[in-house]
Amino acid sequence: MPRFDREAQPAEFGRVLAFSDGVFTVALTLLGLDLALSEAAARQELSQELLDRQSHFLAFGISLWVVGSAWWSHYRLFFLLQGVNGPLLALNIIYVGLVVLIPFAQSVLSGYPFEPLAYVIFGGVLAAIGTVDTGMLAYARRCGLLRGHVTPDDERVELLTGVAYVLTFVASLPLAYLLGPLTIVIWLLFLPVSRLLLKFQARDNRPGVRG
Amino acid sequence: MPRFDREAQPAEFGRVLAFSDGVFTVALTLLGLDLALSEAAARQELSQELLDRQSHFLAFGISLWVVGSAWWSHYRLFFLLQGVNGPLLALNIIYVGLVVLIPFAQSVLSGYPFEPLAYVIFGGVLAAIGTVDTGMLAYARRCGLLRGHVTPDDERVELLTGVAYVLTFVASLPLAYLLGPLTIVIWLLFLPVSRLLLKFQARDNRPGVRG
Amino acid sequence: MPRFDREAQPAEFGRVLAFSDGVFTVALTLLGLDLALSEAAARQELSQELLDRQSHFLAFGISLWVVGSAWWSHYRLFFLLQGVNGPLLALNIIYVGLVVLIPFAQSVLSGYPFEPLAYVIFGGVLAAIGTVDTGMLAYARRCGLLRGHVTPDDERVELLTGVAYVLTFVASLPLAYLLGPLTIVIWLLFLPVSRLLLKFQARDNRPGVRG
Amino acid sequence: MPRFDREAQPAEFGRVLAFSDGVFTVALTLLGLDLALSEAAARQELSQELLDRQSHFLAFGISLWVVGSAWWSHYRLFFLLQGVNGPLLALNIIYVGLVVLIPFAQSVLSGYPFEPLAYVIFGGVLAAIGTVDTGMLAYARRCGLLRGHVTPDDERVELLTGVAYVLTFVASLPLAYLLGPLTIVIWLLFLPVSRLLLKFQARDNRPGVRG
Repeated sequence: MPRFDREAQPAEFGRVLAFSDGVFTVALTLLGLDLALSEAAARQELSQELLDRQSHFLAFGISLWVVGSAWWSHYRLFFLLQGVNGPLLALNIIYVGLVVLIPFAQSVLSGYPFEPLAYVIFGGVLAAIGTVDTGMLAYARRCGLLRGHVTPDDERVELLTGVAYVLTFVASLPLAYLLGPLTIVIWLLFLPVSRLLLKFQARDNRPGVRG
Repeated sequence: MPRFDREAQPAEFGRVLAFSDGVFTVALTLLGLDLALSEAAARQELSQELLDRQSHFLAFGISLWVVGSAWWSHYRLFFLLQGVNGPLLALNIIYVGLVVLIPFAQSVLSGYPFEPLAYVIFGGVLAAIGTVDTGMLAYARRCGLLRGHVTPDDERVELLTGVAYVLTFVASLPLAYLLGPLTIVIWLLFLPVSRLLLKFQARDNRPGVRG
Repeated sequence: MPRFDREAQPAEFGRVLAFSDGVFTVALTLLGLDLALSEAAARQELSQELLDRQSHFLAFGISLWVVGSAWWSHYRLFFLLQGVNGPLLALNIIYVGLVVLIPFAQSVLSGYPFEPLAYVIFGGVLAAIGTVDTGMLAYARRCGLLRGHVTPDDERVELLTGVAYVLTFVASLPLAYLLGPLTIVIWLLFLPVSRLLLKFQARDNRPGVRG
Repeated sequence: MPRFDREAQPAEFGRVLAFSDGVFTVALTLLGLDLALSEAAARQELSQELLDRQSHFLAFGISLWVVGSAWWSHYRLFFLLQGVNGPLLALNIIYVGLVVLIPFAQSVLSGYPFEPLAYVIFGGVLAAIGTVDTGMLAYARRCGLLRGHVTPDDERVELLTGVAYVLTFVASLPLAYLLGPLTIVIWLLFLPVSRLLLKFQARDNRPGVRG
């Protein structure tokens, strides 16, 4: 099984990025499609129609934020990589297969905005995405696929960010039954907090300089 | 937070373009999908069916023109950039999140062609797109992300073009309640006029040569 | 207005290709989506369901052939180009705006397989695509945007191929009212014939060697 | 008819990859769209709704696995190529035209999970994809389009993998009438087995070293 290097095999390395980005962009655009008024719906007053679709706008906003930060995280991950190999490509296909679930999770959220199960599904998809993302980083580190300029500190911060992300969403799954739609607040608040905590902890465990 | 340079990090710089272009192209293709006849609709005479969908063709034409010129503007913007950094990427994700609203705005316009609110929504999305686009240029200028060959004159013209674009659409929002579907005429006429005015003003404020 | 050269501005030149290819691929995939069974439909026998959708399979096959050859023609066109400039980009956006009409034309064809107007619409879209494609080549030739290795013979053959394509579809528009669904046969037969005729004529008008 | 080389014509070679990847990613994302709840459906309990859609989740899982491995196979194929020529591009367009049938095959499977014909259609699409994929490799080998580093052993293993893939799906077509939904098990089990068998056979027929 060959290794596809950033410099030695630019077409192959680039293709992994193009494939992933393609899925991100189509998923992103489908989010907007969920807002589009169906012809059947275009019967009543427009303002009434828009009010009726409040939950769709909410679900769109959350999904947009989610796909945007997943892309951002994937972008940072591949920036750290010198090359990809077979297992990493397989993990990336699984990752991408989870991203295409987001429009489904969005449709559940906009159809059932007061149902805890909808938040469990949405949070579960995000937890799974975070797990594969973090797993790819851990695997790449173990197989020496990271670029030369990546320091152990960089690696640790990236890994902890990933772990904090996953923990936030896993923790929110049972809480969804208590909180319902407020689970979103947990996602928005808990995420920066847990990341911060883990960062501090990382700093304490380190011997030396540079914050 | 690293900076992703055009020459030093071609894979990363290219990925931002690919991600943006992906969203543009899917949004563009979805515009065409709104025209497609649904199976339920395919019951009456085709010519009658097409006449009934007049507003869809109008909304398609406008949206096509809008997405096309947004792409063109994004293309010119990134041509001026030497590299991107974190905040610029975040602005670009917001930009792209606004572009995916265009198919929604189109569906509102084709469903409610005589409703002023539809034109407010459409114009509002365009004003927001223009604002982020111009904001990205202003930010890039302030952070020294522009390419060496960009002159202060180039920058000023680009910025003023952006400001004229935003002002056109912001000004059209209240006018939509007076004009209804004629707001489109405002968009088509006002845009070149306001751009021209601002260009002249820019010329007057400059000391030197070259128009 | 700058010129974006293949070698000097690879990111910009590549972006035009990526933008165009994105539209081709989404349009192509939407063709397949037209075949997908709707949930409402999934009530009767599968074999009956598939028989009822005969016209959809036909329209899919034609559209696939059409998008495939449009991509092929666009691919060859850009292979001849050394760079692009503003007007060529504008023509390309119009081109791409016509390609996104193909799923609409396909839906008309699959919904009204015995209606001449459906063939007029489909053929009209194709004639328009061919016109813009040929216009781009003619414009590029006039502005010196072609690559060094392109001979006048190459140019002539490409131009004549384009003209033959356009003439075939323009000629088929009135014939559709006589022939109905058989217009497809005209498209499939006439295309290679008219191209051949024009090639021979081109050869006769040339002084020298090499067929 | 020119040949588009990996190094000499990077824009052209890359465009073939981008075109193919575009189709893969849109097809992949449309798979997820099939799961999305329709507005009409959002009437009953969410958990009941999800239970009713069991066959959709199954069809999604299989299709994801199928598109993922088709991409993987296409990725490996183009990694072996030094360049592409006209006939190979034509084969690739046919290949891509088959990939866009997968969302259709998925909709048949999720709508008729107990109908043998659904498995015949799905397996037939996969057999056709595998045939074109293997045909592209065989053609590239015959025309000297493979890269220098590809050994005859590499070629043989790739070809046999392709043949095993095709045979698995062709063999499953009549079996689908006996097995119904269990055909999936055949696909999942038979694939690695037949590949293994062919690999051993390949080894026995070889004179020399290295497994």
